[in-house]
Parts: sequence; structure tokens; C-alpha cells
Amino acid sequence: MKALRYYGARDIRCEAMDDPAIQDARDAIIRVDRCGICGSDLHIYHGEGFSEDIGFCVGHEAVGEVVEIGRGVNRLRVGDKVMISAAVGCGACTSCLAGNVIHCANNAAGCYGLSSRLQGSQAEAVRVPAADFNAAVIPEGIAADQALMMTDALATAWFGARNADIAVGQTVAVVGLGPIGLLAVESAFIMGAARVYAIDLVPERRRLAEAAGAIALDPVDAVEIIREQTSGRMAEAVVEAVGHARTIDLALRLAGRRGTVSVIGVNQDRKFDFPMARAFAGGLTFRIGTCSVPEEWPALIPLIQSGRLKPEKYISHVMALDDGAKAYDLFDKRADGALKMVLAP
Amino acid sequence: MKALRYYGARDIRCEAMDDPAIQDARDAIIRVDRCGICGSDLHIYHGEGFSEDIGFCVGHEAVGEVVEIGRGVNRLRVGDKVMISAAVGCGACTSCLAGNVIHCANNAAGCYGLSSRLQGSQAEAVRVPAADFNAAVIPEGIAADQALMMTDALATAWFGARNADIAVGQTVAVVGLGPIGLLAVESAFIMGAARVYAIDLVPERRRLAEAAGAIALDPVDAVEIIREQTSGRMAEAVVEAVGHARTIDLALRLAGRRGTVSVIGVNQDRKFDFPMARAFAGGLTFRIGTCSVPEEWPALIPLIQSGRLKPEKYISHVMALDDGAKAYDLFDKRADGALKMVLAP
Amino acid sequence: MKALRYYGARDIRCEAMDDPAIQDARDAIIRVDRCGICGSDLHIYHGEGFSEDIGFCVGHEAVGEVVEIGRGVNRLRVGDKVMISAAVGCGACTSCLAGNVIHCANNAAGCYGLSSRLQGSQAEAVRVPAADFNAAVIPEGIAADQALMMTDALATAWFGARNADIAVGQTVAVVGLGPIGLLAVESAFIMGAARVYAIDLVPERRRLAEAAGAIALDPVDAVEIIREQTSGRMAEAVVEAVGHARTIDLALRLAGRRGTVSVIGVNQDRKFDFPMARAFAGGLTFRIGTCSVPEEWPALIPLIQSGRLKPEKYISHVMALDDGAKAYDLFDKRADGALKMVLAP
Amino acid sequence: MKALRYYGARDIRCEAMDDPAIQDARDAIIRVDRCGICGSDLHIYHGEGFSEDIGFCVGHEAVGEVVEIGRGVNRLRVGDKVMISAAVGCGACTSCLAGNVIHCANNAAGCYGLSSRLQGSQAEAVRVPAADFNAAVIPEGIAADQALMMTDALATAWFGARNADIAVGQTVAVVGLGPIGLLAVESAFIMGAARVYAIDLVPERRRLAEAAGAIALDPVDAVEIIREQTSGRMAEAVVEAVGHARTIDLALRLAGRRGTVSVIGVNQDRKFDFPMARAFAGGLTFRIGTCSVPEEWPALIPLIQSGRLKPEKYISHVMALDDGAKAYDLFDKRADGALKMVLAP
Repeated sequence: MKALRYYGARDIRCEAMDDPAIQDARDAIIRVDRCGICGSDLHIYHGEGFSEDIGFCVGHEAVGEVVEIGRGVNRLRVGDKVMISAAVGCGACTSCLAGNVIHCANNAAGCYGLSSRLQGSQAEAVRVPAADFNAAVIPEGIAADQALMMTDALATAWFGARNADIAVGQTVAVVGLGPIGLLAVESAFIMGAARVYAIDLVPERRRLAEAAGAIALDPVDAVEIIREQTSGRMAEAVVEAVGHARTIDLALRLAGRRGTVSVIGVNQDRKFDFPMARAFAGGLTFRIGTCSVPEEWPALIPLIQSGRLKPEKYISHVMALDDGAKAYDLFDKRADGALKMVLAP
Repeated sequence: MKALRYYGARDIRCEAMDDPAIQDARDAIIRVDRCGICGSDLHIYHGEGFSEDIGFCVGHEAVGEVVEIGRGVNRLRVGDKVMISAAVGCGACTSCLAGNVIHCANNAAGCYGLSSRLQGSQAEAVRVPAADFNAAVIPEGIAADQALMMTDALATAWFGARNADIAVGQTVAVVGLGPIGLLAVESAFIMGAARVYAIDLVPERRRLAEAAGAIALDPVDAVEIIREQTSGRMAEAVVEAVGHARTIDLALRLAGRRGTVSVIGVNQDRKFDFPMARAFAGGLTFRIGTCSVPEEWPALIPLIQSGRLKPEKYISHVMALDDGAKAYDLFDKRADGALKMVLAP
Repeated sequence: MKALRYYGARDIRCEAMDDPAIQDARDAIIRVDRCGICGSDLHIYHGEGFSEDIGFCVGHEAVGEVVEIGRGVNRLRVGDKVMISAAVGCGACTSCLAGNVIHCANNAAGCYGLSSRLQGSQAEAVRVPAADFNAAVIPEGIAADQALMMTDALATAWFGARNADIAVGQTVAVVGLGPIGLLAVESAFIMGAARVYAIDLVPERRRLAEAAGAIALDPVDAVEIIREQTSGRMAEAVVEAVGHARTIDLALRLAGRRGTVSVIGVNQDRKFDFPMARAFAGGLTFRIGTCSVPEEWPALIPLIQSGRLKPEKYISHVMALDDGAKAYDLFDKRADGALKMVLAP
Repeated sequence: MKALRYYGARDIRCEAMDDPAIQDARDAIIRVDRCGICGSDLHIYHGEGFSEDIGFCVGHEAVGEVVEIGRGVNRLRVGDKVMISAAVGCGACTSCLAGNVIHCANNAAGCYGLSSRLQGSQAEAVRVPAADFNAAVIPEGIAADQALMMTDALATAWFGARNADIAVGQTVAVVGLGPIGLLAVESAFIMGAARVYAIDLVPERRRLAEAAGAIALDPVDAVEIIREQTSGRMAEAVVEAVGHARTIDLALRLAGRRGTVSVIGVNQDRKFDFPMARAFAGGLTFRIGTCSVPEEWPALIPLIQSGRLKPEKYISHVMALDDGAKAYDLFDKRADGALKMVLAP
């Protein structure tokens, strides 16, 4: 099959690769219809990934069709159209069964496309472990592109908004307006936010947030403007969707008394000088972590089915798998209005 | 002053009445700018009210200006523009202090305009007991008509939606589309409902619900249509805004497994043959009660300020106090598109 | 094998029966070490059961050892010591996967020992459908008798207490002090109840509740005593563990303002004259339903492991399967201090 | 009157001072029956307090009798026995009215005995601002010493446990076993903790925690022992009751996946090198702040009344106000088993 493979910094190639095969009775093989490029794929693209491996297939977002199942697969059937969770768990431990895939007690937790251990989904096919658990039939009334957004970006945005303890009537701030930040803006409104401040350096991303109903601000004066407009109360909930120490610090400055800061940006700075005195005075809650994707699906599915959430609107490009290298380059440079990049194998 | 006074069934007159006076150190006198007629006022209008008194002033919704305060009033000032809670409490017991005015431990709980005990607000002025507690300055950015809607109708609708345990992504049903039912539809969407079914006999009220985003149904086939559209799951949350045994029974039929039925309609049938077997099989929650108005304000105020809630859109008429009798008549007959009736003394 | 079989009112016999066999790839066969008799088994014993079948094996509580598994069983292994959920679901639908077994969307929901459809567990062996889902390995540190209590009685009591919305510091009442009611008393304390009123006609059951820390009352004057001791506030949460119209009505009288009444007694009176006016005045919540057993295990397991819950203390008898008829008779007559009856095949 | 006054590090003197007087209509003067010394008073005692003032009266915990009220006091009466909240708010802003005294929007938030601005309560009398709001009649069935514990220590411990999101069945850890830490252990059990690990350097404090049901550990090997005993899951909720960077870091090491760390120790190290990577991997919640005392009373009062909480058992000394200097010295040195120090003016 064809697959996007990693050969070093800024060297992703669409090449031939062995077809994936069933390795365990609970595996399934999925023929990929659509796969996405995630902001966190850029860490790998920049040569700052999560392993030393070379030649592995990248990507962790995909929807497609089941073409083969192991004999221990009970729920999926060959021919099913499925969405594949970016987060992978064993599906059998108490943590997985409670929905917390990320903290799988059997250490099976993982993600496609980070190393040779679990090949990526930017390919014509992908092997899904514990497939009954790590994939699901696309529900009726949901299009493939919508399902693709649920495999990571929308689930992560929603999780980030939930982690911010957003309650009806609140003032919310979102820092960082990539696809996940923009979807966090939409999530905040669905959760009942009265006002959402959306903060990013890039004017066209701010315009998209405004179109979603947010008050868009440049980070340079966001603190001052929010302080003034809220009479000093600031935001009750803040979602940080970047992951830099600088933006996390900004998020902490935006949180008002008893506010919650939720960090979903994949953390790129390992140490952080936490403003303890400010946090103590403010009675703040700081929450950070990553998303156990399928845990978010029961809330998201009916919202997409009813048309309240249209996550596919942030797909800026749909390109051929052969053009994967070009797609990575556009996305990396934020060129040509690149927002959510989708590949069609 | 002039006031609307009750003299028997369908006999409400705009007449002279003694000006209200401070009776207790914590009282305030409010000059009424706007007052509303509530669906529950029609019980009185039909001669099926809550006392045998004659000649008392009716009405329990009002906004206006503080013109006199007792010496124990600490927070309100003469000249303040205020909204007056329809629900009155002592403001000093543990129940009131916990926000539960309706269950005031000092039995001070009550409502304006039900008897001579506490004169109504459909008048040029009204006496507010424990005024620091039972009234509040209209927050910046909120118009008088919006504040008026918060004194009962919107607060009750919001309370009813909260009582239905509405969670994001749910399917909700609202039975009865008077002003409160329509505001419950809007509340449900703000609380994250994926879909809202809105049920009423009156086509023009159904059209208003559709304009708010709901799927409007006639009660005659509501159960069947919802069953079909939800593949038998029915609604997860149901708000009943009528109060008849018949509509409560309908609400219970609309609730799916582990669903919640919230009744806010003022109950007109004292006995009810509860479908225990169905409720047991469904694992249902049934909740009924009335609203401690100011308890709902902290969530509602920012939603109105930000423009997400525009409760005043359901005001169909603004008439002079002198025309009060006519306003009651229109409202009673649902004539001339009567929805929320407002009087301007 | 030997099994307790139903032949009509008060006619339960220990007789030979065909060994259970794997019927579906996801089945497992469990050799029963211990099984319990539940209060709801008495409905069958009285000839007022749930089917017209004759000769089926009764009982729905059991622990034992896995002796055979179908090829679709992924988590259980032959030799595992397991507890079997009294509530059975398909384990594959969204309802089951969300923990709500009782409302299994595939209509696979059921219970052992109610008819020939799913043979009971008061036998030497039992077939468990969707065994990975409907049974679980007994966690380390939990004895067989403790696990047996988790298969229904303790899970139901805990569910009933949860359904009453018990919060720390509250006054709770429990109506009916069979094993489930007594375990609801213990559950209420663990959930933080300040005081628990425990109500039953039988003095020795009241003594057991007192030993658990409750204030035990006779139903005849429970309302008056609680009114006096709470200065009229009554209970904030009430658990009804009988299921008669009379006791449900008592439960509704015990609930104070904004209180919750949770009914877990299997309902024996199909119609109920709900006190709507009182419920409206009190702002009450009424919740009724039955327990999706495994949903309660994650909270219960650590409480038993740490010794805070010792549910086995309510086991009054452990008898041989051959003595099953006698056990039913003792239990039915509440003779010999019969509380929780256990059989050891 | 006599009062304990601050004159520099380790120089607290019992001296004459002007009697407090009503300064505002909402003030009350309380004759102090009992006052406590809090761990945070030691910061002042060490000369590391919160102002440069000299000669002010110290202390912020007291119960006593109302001897004078301003004309704007509506609820308290002369002769009432009251408990005084250590946290002071204006009682009129939306933050205070929502229970969040600490973040009083009028900046009236404060505490007695930190400077000359608001004189302390370690005296024969104290002025209480907004007395209806900042003090409450001691409820029936609660002794003065119990009420005294509610004015700060118990309220703070309970708040800290609440902030840790403790849920029934969880494993909890408490770092630091002064009076507040010990009361956090008791709070955790009432909230349903299955197990509580209690960590302190001082063996006799560990023994007190064991007497309360905890598993007491020395900090030196607490992480390892908890890891082993929980099979690596660690604690789901951690309460930090010291406030040093070292103990906060320990608390963060004790928290398992999706765990919450609640810091209530008054922070003594302003900067903190937050372990971002560990927190991200663990999906942790970090919450820090101080307690709005009266907000905790509704849950605590019934628990004390029913005997489930006996906070007074941690009072180690009751001494005369004249012996205040000696009491501070004993407390500072942890001599003579000093735990909670109480003075009786």
C-alpha cells in the first residue's frame, strides 16, 4: 500500500509500505477513506517527535472501512464504515472500561504514527488494536468528514472545554485558534458560555472565531481588554490550546477568581514557573491533560447529528495522499489559509 | 395611586388605591415602571385564585424605581432602578440565605397579588418586604423589559429546564408553549440540548418555537413522532409548562430511559394517577416545584447582557395600566397574538 | 447438575437439571460456589413471578469459577473466580457501554432465574451471556461472600442511595430494613449523611439499623418523630426499599423541602395516587428504578477492600443447595432471624 | 480591655487596649468567650506577617456574645451567642452573596488580626463588620469549642477536602497533620474516602491520624509505600496542608491518573517549579486557595450536631488570655503536645 513515512525533519514521503496485517485476535484492518494532519504531527515533521525511528508511517486521525477482523472482534463487521480513535487503549482494564483510555492500566495506551510500534493512519490502510474498543461505526446522519473531526480534533477541543469546568452564563477565554482552539470556542458556546474571548496572533484565525460568535483579541492587549470589559472579573474558564509556557502563563492571567485553566496544548516546555501567589489569591484550578477520545463521543454525536456542531467547516484542504508532503508543508507554513488538512488515500 | 384590583371572576378594575407605605424597617417602596401579567394570574381572573379577598391589587411581576426605604435597608438606595422577585422570602433564614426563597423557614414565603396580605404589583407602586433580598438593582446592559422577564417568566423557565437535568447533547421536550414554555425551549438550547421538541395545540405558538430552533409538534402525534425520530429512545429531559394532569401524563410518556420530567406548570389537578410501572421500567425522575426567582439571576444576567438570551422578544403587548382589564381579556382569550402582556403604569 | 427449580407457589425443589452449555461465542459457564436468595425471589416463590414457565431454575445472585468460555470471550479465563451481575445486558449497545445495562438497546436486558429464557443461578452451574461484560473477576482482597453481596443486594442499596441524591451533612430516611434497606443505611453514612432514620415494623431489624448508627423508628410514628427532631425540615433524602404504595406514600411524607425520594423496592402496586399538591409545595424529586449492577462496582470495590463496607454481616444463613426449599421457607417467614440467605452448591 | 498585641518577632503581649466601638451601622461588638491560635498566626509571630504595623491585636478565630449592634444589623441581637468567620466580606456584593467572601468585589475581604486595619480577636472583645453576614448564631446542639473550630480550622480543612474533589470510594492522601490536616483526614472519611494516607514528620501527629482511621506515613517513604499499596494507581485526591514548595511537590507526586491536588497551606514560597510533563501525563488537576468560611457551615453544622464530626478533640490547650505569650511559645515549639491552642479571655 501507499503511506506517508517519516525520514527526518521536513522529510515526509508518500511511499510503498507493507500492508498492515492482523497481529492479535482483537485487531481489525481498516481501509482508510480520509485521514487528517494534526497540529501535533508538526512536532514529528520538525524532527522533534517521540521516537528515533525512521521510515514509520505517520498520522493518527482516520475514518474508513473495515476490511478484515480478528476472531476476537465481536462488534465490528467487515464492511462497517468506522471512525478510529486517535487514543488507543487495551479496552479491557478498569481504566479503559471507565473511559480513561489514556491511562490504560495495561500500558497499551498509545497513539498511531508516533513510531514503528503502532503504524500511522496517513496510509491506504491501518491496523487497529482492540478494534471493538478503539473504533466505532460512524453513526447514522454523520458524514465521513464530520466523523474524521471526531477522531481527535473535536474530541480534544470538547475535552478541553469540559476540563475548564465551563458552566452556563460564564465568560470563557480560549488561547490559540488552530482547529482545536476554534472548536473549543464552539464547544464553549454549546456548554452555555455567555461570552467567549478568542485569542490568537493571526488575524484570519481571529476572524473565524468572530464568525463563530466570539470576541477575538490579539494576545498583546487581551488581558487589559478583558479586564476592562469584565470590570476586573476576568474569565471564569480558560482553555489553552497551544502548549507553550508563554501561552499557559497568559491563560493563567486571564482566569478570574475561582476560575479554571484547562491546558490541552501538547506541552512543549517541560518546566513552568507557576505563579503560586497569584493562583492562591485567585483560588484557581489548573488542569492539564490529553483526551481519551471515545469518552467524548456520546455527547458529540447528537450535537453533530442535529446540526448544532459542524466541525467539518474548519477543513481547509482535502488533498491526495500522494500530495502529503505538500500538505505538511502548507500546514507548517500556515500557507494558503491552511487550517485542518485532510488527505484522501 | 392607581392599581388593578380584583372584584371577582373576570372583574379586574383599574381603580384608585391607598399608596403603599413602609411597614417594616427592611421594606422599600418601588414606583412601578413596567409590570407583567403572568399565566398564573389567569387563575385569579377566572375566580379560581388563592384567597377569598376582594379588592386586593393583583400581579407579581414588576420593575421600577426605589422611592422610599426603611432604615434597615442596607443595599438599595432611593433612585435605584430595580427588578422585584415574584417570590418573596424573609431573607434571613437558612433557607432564604441558601437561595431557596420558596421554602423560607419563617413562612414569609409568598408572592405579590394573591390576596390582601401582600398587595400586587400591577399598580403605580408596590411595597417590597426585605427589599435588599427580594429586589436587586437592574444590572448594567439590561433593559427594563428584559429585567421584567427575569422577575418571573424567564426565571421559572430556566428553573424548569435546570430541574429537567438537561445536559449537553441531549434530546429535550417542552410541553406547553406559552411565554414560559417558549423560554424553556431557549433555555434548553443554551444548556446544550442537541434537539428540542416543542409541543402545543396552538399553531402560532409552535411557529415561535420553530423560530427558536425547536422541532414543533402537535400533542396528538408527538409521542409517535418522537419515538420514530429517536429510534425509541424518546427525550432525556422533559419540561412541562402547563400543569394539567393530561399534560403531565404526556410529559411522562415523552421521557426515555433514565429521563427526567420537570413540572413547572402551576398544578391545577390535585390528584394524579402516577404510572408507576412505566416509571419503574424507565428509571424515571419526576420533579415538580416552583421557582426561587433570585436564585436563577446569576446565570441569566450574563446571558442577557451578552445577547444570547433575548426574553423580551416574547412580549406581545405593552399597554397602559388603565387598559388592564382589556389586557387581561386579550390574554385570557389568546386574542390578537397575546403572549406576554406588559402594562406601563 | 443439581438446581433449585420452580414448580408453583411455595414449590421450589432441588432437582437434577441439564448442565448449562455454551450457546453463543461470548458465553461462559460458571461453576457456582455461592448463590443468594433475594427478596424479589419471593415474588416467584409466592407464585406471583414474571412468567408462566414451570421447572426453570431460579435465582440471580452468584459467585463462582469460570469452567468454560466461548471463543469470543476476551477477558475472562477458565479458572477465574468471578462475580456475576444480576442485571444482564448485551454489552455491545451504547446503553450497555454507558453502564446502563437495564436499558440495553438490544433488549438483551434481563435477569437470571425469572423464566426458562435465562436459567437461574441457584444451581451448581450457570451460563452467563456476554460474559466479559456481565461478570467480573473478584478483585483482590474481597471474599466470596462479599462479592456475592455485590451481585445484587449491595449494588441495589448503593444505587438507591445514589438515586436519593444524598449529600454530605444531610438527614436521610430509609423505609424498609431488609438486607437492601440495611445496606442503604450503611451506604447513606458512607455518602456523608449526618443522620439516618431507619424505619421498619420489625424490632430486630430496627436493632440492626441502630447498630449501624441509624435512629430506628416504627412506621407508626416516624413522620411525627422526624418532624419534631428536625424542626419540621424532615429528611433531605429518602430511600424506599419495600415497593408498596403504602411505603412509597410514607417515603413521600418523610421528604422535606426540595427533598428526593428514591424508590428501589420492586414495585408491587401498579397504580399510585401521587400527592401532587404536596410534591409541588415541597419541590420534591421522585425517582424510581432498578440497578445496572456493574455500574456500581467501581465505588463499592475499594470500600469493601478497605473495610469501610462489610456487606457480608447481613448474611444470616449459609445452607446447602439441597436445603434450598427450607431456606426459601425460612426467608419467607422471616423465621430464625432470616435476613440474607446464602446457598452453597 | 485586654488584648494580645504584636510588637515584633516572638513578642506578643497581653496588654490593655481601647475597647472596640461601632464604626458602621452594620457593625457588631462581640465579647469574646473563646479564641484560637491558628497556624498562620505563627507567620506573624515569626515577624513574617502581612503588615509593618506594630501594636495591633492579633488572632482571627473567636466565638462570643453580641454586646452591641449598629442600627443596620437586622439578624443578630444583643445577647446572641455567635461564631465569627475568620474570612470577612462586605456581605453585599455578588461575590459575597454567592458565598465567595474571599473574593469580595468591594475589596472588603479580609481577616482579623493581620494589621491595625481590622483588629484581631485574641482579646476581650472584637468589632465585626457587616455582622449579619460575617457572624452567625451558634446553632443549637453545638458547643462553644465546636463552634470555635468552625471559625477557621475545620472550615478550611473541609474546604480543602472539597477542593480535592474527593468522591466516595477514593484513595486520599493528606500532607501535613497539624489541626487542619487532621481535620482534613476526618473530612475525607465523611466524604466517603475508602482509604486515607496521612503524612507528617511528627510521630505523635501520625498517631492521631491513625486514631482517626488513616494509614499514617513518614514523608520519607510515603510515595513508595502508596505506590506499592495502590498497585501504582496512587491517590485520587490529595490535600496539602503545609504550604511549602517541598510539600506541594510531594502532593503532586502522590496524585494518580486524573487525580486532584488541593493546596490549603498558606503559601510560603512564592515561586514553584511546576512539573508540567508529569502533570500532563497524569491528567492532573491542581487547585489552590483559601476558604470563605461561612460557605462551609451548612454542611458542617449537621455533622457536628449529629456527632459525626468532633473537631474539638484536637484542642490540646485552653489557657487564659494573660498566658497568650506562653501559648504562642508552646505552639511554635510544638511543645507539650501543642495542637489546637485556645484562649479564654
